Amino acid sequence: MTGLARFSLNQQTVRQWSLPELATGCAAAGVRYVGLWRGPVQEYGAAAAGRLVRAHGLRVSSLCRGGFLTSPEPAARAAALADNRAAVEQAAELGAPVLVLVPGGLPPGSGDLPGARERVAEALAGLAPYAAGHGVRLAIEPLHPMYASDRSVVSTLRQALDLVERFPADQVGVVADSYHLWWDDTVPGQLARAGEGGRIAALQLADWVTPLPEGALLGRGQLGDGCVDLHRFFEQATAAGYRGPVEAEIFSTRLWAGDGAEVLAETLERYRRYVLARPEVAANPEIAHRVTEK
Amino acid sequence: MTGLARFSLNQQTVRQWSLPELATGCAAAGVRYVGLWRGPVQEYGAAAAGRLVRAHGLRVSSLCRGGFLTSPEPAARAAALADNRAAVEQAAELGAPVLVLVPGGLPPGSGDLPGARERVAEALAGLAPYAAGHGVRLAIEPLHPMYASDRSVVSTLRQALDLVERFPADQVGVVADSYHLWWDDTVPGQLARAGEGGRIAALQLADWVTPLPEGALLGRGQLGDGCVDLHRFFEQATAAGYRGPVEAEIFSTRLWAGDGAEVLAETLERYRRYVLARPEVAANPEIAHRVTEK
Repeated sequence: MTGLARFSLNQQTVRQWSLPELATGCAAAGVRYVGLWRGPVQEYGAAAAGRLVRAHGLRVSSLCRGGFLTSPEPAARAAALADNRAAVEQAAELGAPVLVLVPGGLPPGSGDLPGARERVAEALAGLAPYAAGHGVRLAIEPLHPMYASDRSVVSTLRQALDLVERFPADQVGVVADSYHLWWDDTVPGQLARAGEGGRIAALQLADWVTPLPEGALLGRGQLGDGCVDLHRFFEQATAAGYRGPVEAEIFSTRLWAGDGAEVLAETLERYRRYVLARPEVAANPEIAHRVTEK
Repeated sequence: MTGLARFSLNQQTVRQWSLPELATGCAAAGVRYVGLWRGPVQEYGAAAAGRLVRAHGLRVSSLCRGGFLTSPEPAARAAALADNRAAVEQAAELGAPVLVLVPGGLPPGSGDLPGARERVAEALAGLAPYAAGHGVRLAIEPLHPMYASDRSVVSTLRQALDLVERFPADQVGVVADSYHLWWDDTVPGQLARAGEGGRIAALQLADWVTPLPEGALLGRGQLGDGCVDLHRFFEQATAAGYRGPVEAEIFSTRLWAGDGAEVLAETLERYRRYVLARPEVAANPEIAHRVTEK
């Protein structure tokens, strides 16, 4: 299948697959990159996982995830920093060039977003050179504002860039994920800013569909099922100079209930139709976003 | 009870109350303003509802809601405009100075956010003078970005101001609601901008709590139960020159399950503790936001 030179399958999209199934399935489909998660990698062994993917002709686009660096409590903070150093070591063992960091939410009882962001910056000051020493680049991922209290006090690409630009570009970049950023009209300008500074460390794609499920975590849309102009997002990142892997990362109970190979085939078909090509939106009557209540 | 001169109870906070119960209950508690919704007002009769609240010494702070003005389909568009004119007439009959407009989401099959916003502007061009002729001011409410696809293509206060500043300030303002805006670090500056231009038409309060329920609609937090610095939000609006009513508008299945008078008493106590006073956050161990999953 052509057009897949930059496609990466994030393993959360096919959570039903083991690491060996992922490697075999991706190789069989002509995929060249995979995005991996710490849990399954740790279970398999990081070095062994690295060998496994390389043996199938694959490269790791990113390891998810470190972060959660907002606690002001000394013990929790020390534990978080140790965990992030372990994640860096795991990324290095695995051969992942990028470690994705989810900054973390507000500490219990706090409403101080700027203070929490500052603690992320303080943590990066130590972690960034540590990661660089291991050949790993950190990437701050701004998450949708609906996660601002419990997952990420960094909600916009602009906030993420304000944060990472305090560190060398080769040590700390950003993750641009369409699911988190699609609604924000400042993103085109901020993607250009990120590109100019060489700060786009990873690009991830999922579509936006409603209604959101309870907890708002596992309802991401398959590419083309929602309202995000994925082609435009991809083009903007490309115009900004990003030439790296493009990860499909879709947390979806619907996709997890299917056969892994079929989910991958569907994802690749959607990637070519909605990401690489300019889709004719009107030709997709099954588009899933809708007014759920007036 | 002192400190309630500006407090307004939005009737969605006590959905279990009929309009007469709302009027009696608010008057008994020393409340001076109520925020009303079209459904119950229409059922009771707008003019009769106006008489009812005035007979209890109350004033209407706002009527919710018109809007949903993003459809490009001629028939749907004409119906939406007619519905909004009816809402204006209802507000006038009721004696509500402000009609809240929820702009509307993306039309089915569309990913064109700027185009949808432009259709809201086109609608306002006709509706704003119509409303002014009825003594009613329109107020655009930016909704949290998690509603961008299905409820409001206007997600930030900055976008709302960019939109309303195309019209006279006495005809079109904005609603600043803490639930929708709390996460955004540009809000303090945008509230100042809104105040300078005389654009703050209404102020609404709810707290942010997680996890979000399915559909993300009915999980707003009672004042003080979440992570929003409500006092700071209130102070910023006051510093920007806003001196109007302050509505507690809390869509919460927990509150609707309680006794209306008890919910109002709790809300008033929370209003004085977390909005009027600077709370000692550390003194509130039951604070409800939390990390739901790492």
